[in-house]
Amino acid sequence: MKENRLNRVAKGMEAMGLAQILVSSPASVYYLTGTWVEPGERMLALYIHKSGDAKLFANRMFALSGSVDAPLVEFDDTEDAAKILADALRPGAIGIDKLWPSQFTIRLMDARSDIRPVLGSKPVDDARMLKDAEEIALMRESSRKNDVAIARAMEAVVPGATESSVADAYARAAQELGAGSGFPPLVCFGKNCAEPHHSTDNTELRPGDSVILDVGLSWNRYASDMTRTAFFGEPTDEQRRVHDLVVKANAAGRAAARPGVMMKEIDRAARKVIEDAGYGPHFIHRTGHGIGLEVHEPPDASAVSDVIAAPGMVFSVEPGIYLPGRFGVREEDLVLITGDGAETFNHFPHEMRIL
Amino acid sequence: MKENRLNRVAKGMEAMGLAQILVSSPASVYYLTGTWVEPGERMLALYIHKSGDAKLFANRMFALSGSVDAPLVEFDDTEDAAKILADALRPGAIGIDKLWPSQFTIRLMDARSDIRPVLGSKPVDDARMLKDAEEIALMRESSRKNDVAIARAMEAVVPGATESSVADAYARAAQELGAGSGFPPLVCFGKNCAEPHHSTDNTELRPGDSVILDVGLSWNRYASDMTRTAFFGEPTDEQRRVHDLVVKANAAGRAAARPGVMMKEIDRAARKVIEDAGYGPHFIHRTGHGIGLEVHEPPDASAVSDVIAAPGMVFSVEPGIYLPGRFGVREEDLVLITGDGAETFNHFPHEMRIL
Repeated sequence: MKENRLNRVAKGMEAMGLAQILVSSPASVYYLTGTWVEPGERMLALYIHKSGDAKLFANRMFALSGSVDAPLVEFDDTEDAAKILADALRPGAIGIDKLWPSQFTIRLMDARSDIRPVLGSKPVDDARMLKDAEEIALMRESSRKNDVAIARAMEAVVPGATESSVADAYARAAQELGAGSGFPPLVCFGKNCAEPHHSTDNTELRPGDSVILDVGLSWNRYASDMTRTAFFGEPTDEQRRVHDLVVKANAAGRAAARPGVMMKEIDRAARKVIEDAGYGPHFIHRTGHGIGLEVHEPPDASAVSDVIAAPGMVFSVEPGIYLPGRFGVREEDLVLITGDGAETFNHFPHEMRIL
Repeated sequence: MKENRLNRVAKGMEAMGLAQILVSSPASVYYLTGTWVEPGERMLALYIHKSGDAKLFANRMFALSGSVDAPLVEFDDTEDAAKILADALRPGAIGIDKLWPSQFTIRLMDARSDIRPVLGSKPVDDARMLKDAEEIALMRESSRKNDVAIARAMEAVVPGATESSVADAYARAAQELGAGSGFPPLVCFGKNCAEPHHSTDNTELRPGDSVILDVGLSWNRYASDMTRTAFFGEPTDEQRRVHDLVVKANAAGRAAARPGVMMKEIDRAARKVIEDAGYGPHFIHRTGHGIGLEVHEPPDASAVSDVIAAPGMVFSVEPGIYLPGRFGVREEDLVLITGDGAETFNHFPHEMRIL
């Protein structure tokens, strides 16, 4: 077990008055044990007692014995996994991971009338929100590689290109850098840039198009995520003005990021730039989201987030302006809250690129 | 609501003594309402009371009003969705869908001390297991298109091909047929064919390779799934013998499929052919799985399945022989149980193909 992380989780449990929890999300189990298991339909649970007692309950087919850094309780498909786990629980409240399939929670209750399931993801989510030095180094490298890969993808924005061909160029670049694939590369041309639900397709590049590349890869399981908007052919005055505004909003959001501010103040700083220029109704999403082992995780940088920024938090700052039927612009960087301010992980320039 | 389907679910609830259930899996909600919603982190639940009273609880952002064929209760992100749902429940046991995230089940319990969550997927799973005429027509067409697409993929097995290039050829063919993508095409060359956990990669085709294509597409949301094993270059005597055996095992499994047999008898019939020839230890998985809106759903055709085959059931028959480090063969068809026997959906020939 990663003892420092386990201790932080145990403190979080104490603060919530929780004596025992079950951790089931693959990312959280990896965070604490160093082993990633995708359980599919099978039961997977890391039991943690506030005393520091921890045990991983896993199907024998995952062959974790000897490789996972946690005390292991194994079972096979002929055994009643939920009953084996139930027998190991203490009476009283038990914190359950938010996404654990209900069938397991119900089977625990059937086996043990003296336990009471309560929401129990917060201690691990809170610990994961504050990245440690090892995680920060991996995330910095993940974003450095993302800077390189997006530059290669930009080179694929040429006459005859489709959204898919540019996405493929990004994926190849990430692979050549030895990185894992992150989320599917999102490439939008022209009016597709103004559609929040567009997904990369075979749309062909046309003169006058805005070109959004929203891309990320995975480095030792840590995600990167950035967006740049370029233009194919000479941009119009409005395209120049909107791009300039979004770059300024991005910079304002990042400038507001420091320990002690509420996350919603970062959203406010970015949003104000866009609102003051009259484009407020066209910035239709939150300013950013936390990121780490998962592409989306706490904390949000949204208008309603009271989370207080603290050293170790990593999140995106990604304002955008979307003009339906015409074009859209988004500029996104990842930011780390440091002891006295913030570090931007991405270094690919924001200057307008005309391709 | 699809009234015939709803009535069958209500009868299943009565048989289990369940007065109310919550259906949450996107496929099951689609089955009953005709609308597919991927709720992501948001709450989605179709409430069904044994009286036939049914209501879909869904976030307003899915914009279902006016389009979904079910009474609708909408809420937005500022409202407490679980509380709204909890207020609509009757006291007592409530059947919960097996994969519903535990956070929702726990929130219901927090809001209502007079309800008791129990496992509640069976009434809908049982109804979905028996395909109706509309579903059978769609599944037959899904497999017909799969027959066409696999033929095109076979044409891509040429000198210089990689597993990925053949998989791409399949995906293109499916797209040209107007079908949706099913599971990622699984293409294996040579010794990769003997590895059950292999996934399609850039392995290059070599003379003497067995070539497994395990592919399926989606037609109006209904899945197809078939496997054929070809050979690149002149096969050895053993490759011929093993291929012949697997084709015979596939035929024996399909011949055993008729109303009234237990699913394990179908597994037995296919397995016996392989065991009798001494290859039993190399047939390392179940003979088949149910299929419909999902690629894997009940009923299994496995050595332990006591489910009794009944008209409307659709499942795969896919025996295989895997010789580690050397080659592997699998032959898979989809089968529908009819009134007096079985219909095979796939018509692409099983004869040995030497490419």
